[in-house]
Amino acid sequence: MTQLNPIRRIAISTGGGDAPGLNAVIRAVVLSALQRGWECYGIREGFNGILRPDRFPSDGVYRIDKDQVRGISHLGGTILGTTNHGNPMRFVVRQADGREIEVDRTDDIIHHLRSMEIDALICIGGDGTLTIAHALHQKGRSQGLRVIGVPKTIDNDLDKTYTTFGFDTAVAFATDCIDRLHSTAESHRRIMVVEVMGRYAGWIALHAGMAGSAHAILIPEIAFDVQNVVKKIQSRTQTGRHYSIVVVAEGARAKDGQRYLEEQAQAGGVERLGGIGEELARELERRTGKEARAVVLGHLLRGGSPTSFDRLSALRFGAAAVRALDQGYSGIMVALAFPNVNYVNLEEVAGRMKGVPLDGDTLQTGRDIGICFGD
Amino acid sequence: MTQLNPIRRIAISTGGGDAPGLNAVIRAVVLSALQRGWECYGIREGFNGILRPDRFPSDGVYRIDKDQVRGISHLGGTILGTTNHGNPMRFVVRQADGREIEVDRTDDIIHHLRSMEIDALICIGGDGTLTIAHALHQKGRSQGLRVIGVPKTIDNDLDKTYTTFGFDTAVAFATDCIDRLHSTAESHRRIMVVEVMGRYAGWIALHAGMAGSAHAILIPEIAFDVQNVVKKIQSRTQTGRHYSIVVVAEGARAKDGQRYLEEQAQAGGVERLGGIGEELARELERRTGKEARAVVLGHLLRGGSPTSFDRLSALRFGAAAVRALDQGYSGIMVALAFPNVNYVNLEEVAGRMKGVPLDGDTLQTGRDIGICFGD
Amino acid sequence: MTQLNPIRRIAISTGGGDAPGLNAVIRAVVLSALQRGWECYGIREGFNGILRPDRFPSDGVYRIDKDQVRGISHLGGTILGTTNHGNPMRFVVRQADGREIEVDRTDDIIHHLRSMEIDALICIGGDGTLTIAHALHQKGRSQGLRVIGVPKTIDNDLDKTYTTFGFDTAVAFATDCIDRLHSTAESHRRIMVVEVMGRYAGWIALHAGMAGSAHAILIPEIAFDVQNVVKKIQSRTQTGRHYSIVVVAEGARAKDGQRYLEEQAQAGGVERLGGIGEELARELERRTGKEARAVVLGHLLRGGSPTSFDRLSALRFGAAAVRALDQGYSGIMVALAFPNVNYVNLEEVAGRMKGVPLDGDTLQTGRDIGICFGD
Amino acid sequence: MTQLNPIRRIAISTGGGDAPGLNAVIRAVVLSALQRGWECYGIREGFNGILRPDRFPSDGVYRIDKDQVRGISHLGGTILGTTNHGNPMRFVVRQADGREIEVDRTDDIIHHLRSMEIDALICIGGDGTLTIAHALHQKGRSQGLRVIGVPKTIDNDLDKTYTTFGFDTAVAFATDCIDRLHSTAESHRRIMVVEVMGRYAGWIALHAGMAGSAHAILIPEIAFDVQNVVKKIQSRTQTGRHYSIVVVAEGARAKDGQRYLEEQAQAGGVERLGGIGEELARELERRTGKEARAVVLGHLLRGGSPTSFDRLSALRFGAAAVRALDQGYSGIMVALAFPNVNYVNLEEVAGRMKGVPLDGDTLQTGRDIGICFGD
Repeated sequence: MTQLNPIRRIAISTGGGDAPGLNAVIRAVVLSALQRGWECYGIREGFNGILRPDRFPSDGVYRIDKDQVRGISHLGGTILGTTNHGNPMRFVVRQADGREIEVDRTDDIIHHLRSMEIDALICIGGDGTLTIAHALHQKGRSQGLRVIGVPKTIDNDLDKTYTTFGFDTAVAFATDCIDRLHSTAESHRRIMVVEVMGRYAGWIALHAGMAGSAHAILIPEIAFDVQNVVKKIQSRTQTGRHYSIVVVAEGARAKDGQRYLEEQAQAGGVERLGGIGEELARELERRTGKEARAVVLGHLLRGGSPTSFDRLSALRFGAAAVRALDQGYSGIMVALAFPNVNYVNLEEVAGRMKGVPLDGDTLQTGRDIGICFGD
Repeated sequence: MTQLNPIRRIAISTGGGDAPGLNAVIRAVVLSALQRGWECYGIREGFNGILRPDRFPSDGVYRIDKDQVRGISHLGGTILGTTNHGNPMRFVVRQADGREIEVDRTDDIIHHLRSMEIDALICIGGDGTLTIAHALHQKGRSQGLRVIGVPKTIDNDLDKTYTTFGFDTAVAFATDCIDRLHSTAESHRRIMVVEVMGRYAGWIALHAGMAGSAHAILIPEIAFDVQNVVKKIQSRTQTGRHYSIVVVAEGARAKDGQRYLEEQAQAGGVERLGGIGEELARELERRTGKEARAVVLGHLLRGGSPTSFDRLSALRFGAAAVRALDQGYSGIMVALAFPNVNYVNLEEVAGRMKGVPLDGDTLQTGRDIGICFGD
Repeated sequence: MTQLNPIRRIAISTGGGDAPGLNAVIRAVVLSALQRGWECYGIREGFNGILRPDRFPSDGVYRIDKDQVRGISHLGGTILGTTNHGNPMRFVVRQADGREIEVDRTDDIIHHLRSMEIDALICIGGDGTLTIAHALHQKGRSQGLRVIGVPKTIDNDLDKTYTTFGFDTAVAFATDCIDRLHSTAESHRRIMVVEVMGRYAGWIALHAGMAGSAHAILIPEIAFDVQNVVKKIQSRTQTGRHYSIVVVAEGARAKDGQRYLEEQAQAGGVERLGGIGEELARELERRTGKEARAVVLGHLLRGGSPTSFDRLSALRFGAAAVRALDQGYSGIMVALAFPNVNYVNLEEVAGRMKGVPLDGDTLQTGRDIGICFGD
Repeated sequence: MTQLNPIRRIAISTGGGDAPGLNAVIRAVVLSALQRGWECYGIREGFNGILRPDRFPSDGVYRIDKDQVRGISHLGGTILGTTNHGNPMRFVVRQADGREIEVDRTDDIIHHLRSMEIDALICIGGDGTLTIAHALHQKGRSQGLRVIGVPKTIDNDLDKTYTTFGFDTAVAFATDCIDRLHSTAESHRRIMVVEVMGRYAGWIALHAGMAGSAHAILIPEIAFDVQNVVKKIQSRTQTGRHYSIVVVAEGARAKDGQRYLEEQAQAGGVERLGGIGEELARELERRTGKEARAVVLGHLLRGGSPTSFDRLSALRFGAAAVRALDQGYSGIMVALAFPNVNYVNLEEVAGRMKGVPLDGDTLQTGRDIGICFGD
């Protein structure tokens, strides 16, 4: 770590899909920084506040004081706005002739921040944002810019941190929804298929499915055979349980590709409708002879007031990011390593994904209490 | 009203889609009846407990005591089970040769109940169930069977009662979902389209949309021009609000049929995906250039623990049904006429639908506070 | 009604204890008024914004625009602040010599408002505030000031309106709390006494107690004999229910004064601790030999995000108040008369109290399902 | 570890104050055990099912099957009942002559269980219960009884486990209550003092206070000077925040004993009313001149449906206890050591208390964002 100048101004950016708790991170960053006598600036919509002067002619990077973070801990979303970047290292730019080209804008970002005499940047975001943060750190340190990452992922699929804010809120709401479906499913003797987020990792499906007493849970980490789900449903029917709840992560996949869909196509030539939840409902209906309905939770999981757990994690992340800066760090991400928050090098994080461990006790608990995982 | 024998035994049936509060009605019926020294029987799954001996060989109609209704007021669903009838007066029967025919089974129901010495029947259900209840009353009174109806409709579209249990729970959950979507919509500058139940009446969309501060609400009672919604969204953008929430009842329809869908088909030849919510999201995306996402609440609105309002309404309905029997009534439906529960003749109810009144103060309030109704 | 000038400016005041929904009323008033081209002003803390220049030197009455009412419908409290007045017609003033005298300040209020060219005032509050509103209307009409009242009472004890915003939220939260206490009471075989608001009327206790499946409910309208509650608890024990939930309104009173407290004093000389809830718990413990615990909900019932029902009622009240002004009314209160909002003369409202009717079907339902009311 | 016979029958006991999640533990134990071909028995009310034949003549220890644990994961309380033991190693027995003596009943428990051919016991409880569990393990192993402990503490004060079920639910509800109080406190310019559980450890106060944006948090681990709280409130007033929320654990204590109470007594001779919350409210009122109100959450924190986090932890604990037995363990407690559940020797747990670490990052976060801890 090179000797750096004392910090006087910091900036904050939130990137990627929003997650409940972002505002609590921002509040903790701002209050912790102000208490150290630093000034705080917010960058609008990821880095658009800097890179899109067309969109933000004057206030793309703006001063944040105590008043602006008052009473925001319990609000969903982000007061800074956010945006989904594609390739994290490159930004698409439309040229005068109308053609779009990809250019590396990290130098522009660093230059803009340093021209405002901003000494440090706190980037709150997922894998893409943290990759950008790492690049900004590497290029920025010679120019006097320190960079700290704060992990954000509703899916809980970021490595090197036990969990992040937003995940508990998503699981809590998904569980509430599954709770709601039990009684209507039982009253109508239906199969309810609940599709939740989780493209690469099945954490939300696993935790909400278990907490909500689902009968089958399908996650990306375990290729499923739909016939195993059918067997589970049939064995329930035989013991007088005429309904079933199946939770499926959007990224769950069948063992042999999606063989049952081919069968289905041959059987009736039905076109594909919707995502995995809808597909699965129709297939289970076909194979069991029971009514099946799909419910897709999607965007509902991103919103809402963060749970107390997520608010606290978010406050701790935000305060830890400022503390790390105060201690002279750059290029690190704050992370939850119960019972404490610690620091991890950003280069160890980028591009790594944390799936549900197949030998973990949570999955084993699911098997012990009779949940079908499709394998 | 002819003089009837004193009541010693009653039966209860729940028909149609389930609604939060059904169990509270059942509990109030059972406790009120037991206190009068009557015996209570539950009929499983609408009238399947009588009509489907294949499904319920022995316990299709079973004795209910205090223990079975303990602690059920706050549970969703119905402990009796339910079923959706098609034509309410007729039931499909599969004959020995495999052919299915429709027969009127009201005589079978009455005969079965009377053979068990059941003196009265309380039917809890929607328009279809209440029509059956009326028929059972007409045929049953000469055979010593009295019939009372209890209205049930999540959509709030039954006439002659101000509201019924289940509706407030559905509105409360839909409002909670809309609340959740505000922050994520704003953070991402998106249009969120929320599709709620309401095939013929827009009560849920109207109440939840207004309570949840939606910017446009589309209901079956008001044919909409999608361009008016577009204008509303654009005027919000011009004043710096870069997101919008549109609530749409599943039965909402565009003014000129679905003309914008034809345009869409001409423009890109895109196939139809999903219901009105998905359609509308894609159309708004096309016309405004903003990202739009659809969320379909569907079955989530049927489940869950009833709100305190619905639990109380349900208890009052159940107790009133027993009171009506005790007072010698038959052929009536209990109804909420604030501040009291009163009785309405079943023949006045069947086949009538209560839509949102176009001259009511709720709709006017919506217009006064700037909500777009698409007209 | 005399012919009045067209309205150009209105002011809003919120008085008395706060209630969830106040902000939704304010939002509907402001949006409805702005849409008519009127200007809106808010008066801080009841009428302190006018009467206490020491406290509000410059901004006691301030302009409210669209931005200030954005996203406030779901917030508890009131953005205007509030205050509890004693005698509604008189305000205590401290003189230069230190003595405090009571003076009638209605003329000062009218003069202040008219000097700002404010043509109409919307007063949102309970019995005290509505009495002030009536006085302001009587004195103000000759000076060009119209006055509309909006009823506010968490206790639901205002006459001439079926209900107001805030009550449903209080009942919902109290019900949630009672739900929570069932399991812990049962696990420990305890009596739980839940004290809720309701000094003169038992609406909250009755509705929450019934929705929450309480076993005894004590309200101001029915003097209770504690021995009847003891009998109820003992009869439950005899049928194997070893716990009981008793809901008591703060204003509930024993039949013979508080005779059981005297007995208690004689028995053990225990000093009085806390309110009716604590007293009752100790007395029930003494008489039944079971452990009893008291929980006082108090201020928790005032706070929180309003339920969807209360948000909608509040919006309707706010819009109706502006509509009434637009139609030329003054001296009236808007009121909920399902299914519509109507107008009631303020003089018919002031000083009248709406208790739980002893012959209403809600109370009868409670008796039918076996709840003990102490009589 | 001595070689033990294979397990065929196990028993479950729940002791001490109830906590949301107990039923999920029981469900996981039963389902996991049944899947291994074991039989399950429940002991009623701690060990009363064995030690109090007067209370439970026949069914003090009863068979539990799949049906009895169906749908109980989301229920508060414990289906087994519970009881608070005093000295954990001794039980009070009333003799024939009416005198009460304390006797060690561990031998009786072991003998009773072995006479029923029960091979293992799972004890779910707090410090007292786990101490009993350890004694039963030590005496029982020579008699063929294995013992596993499952930690239960709402206060989160058990050592050697990061957390247990129930705590998250308590924090979530306390946070919800604090959220509710902000708006009413602000509208009335009041100080609200919220008293929460935590006799020896301030975890609930700390986590809920931070998540709920309290302005001061007083915990047993940090002796407070009430004047520091007064200063915090006054500094808020000076910046225009006219209300404050103070969260206090029931076990919090002032630095110099309770000196301010003496002052108070001298000042006005007021008697002591209620616990620390009430005391503090009156003292803050006296010192700041602002209105202050106390709210005591108490028993409300024990009840309610467990959060998804607590349900999952509880399921994992229950399944891990059975897994430990299957692996041949006895004398251990299952514990949460993120991300896994591990085992800890019971002798390392008993009598140890886990307070909030004064050097932890959570407390530091609180200080960084400006919360007053009274020191």
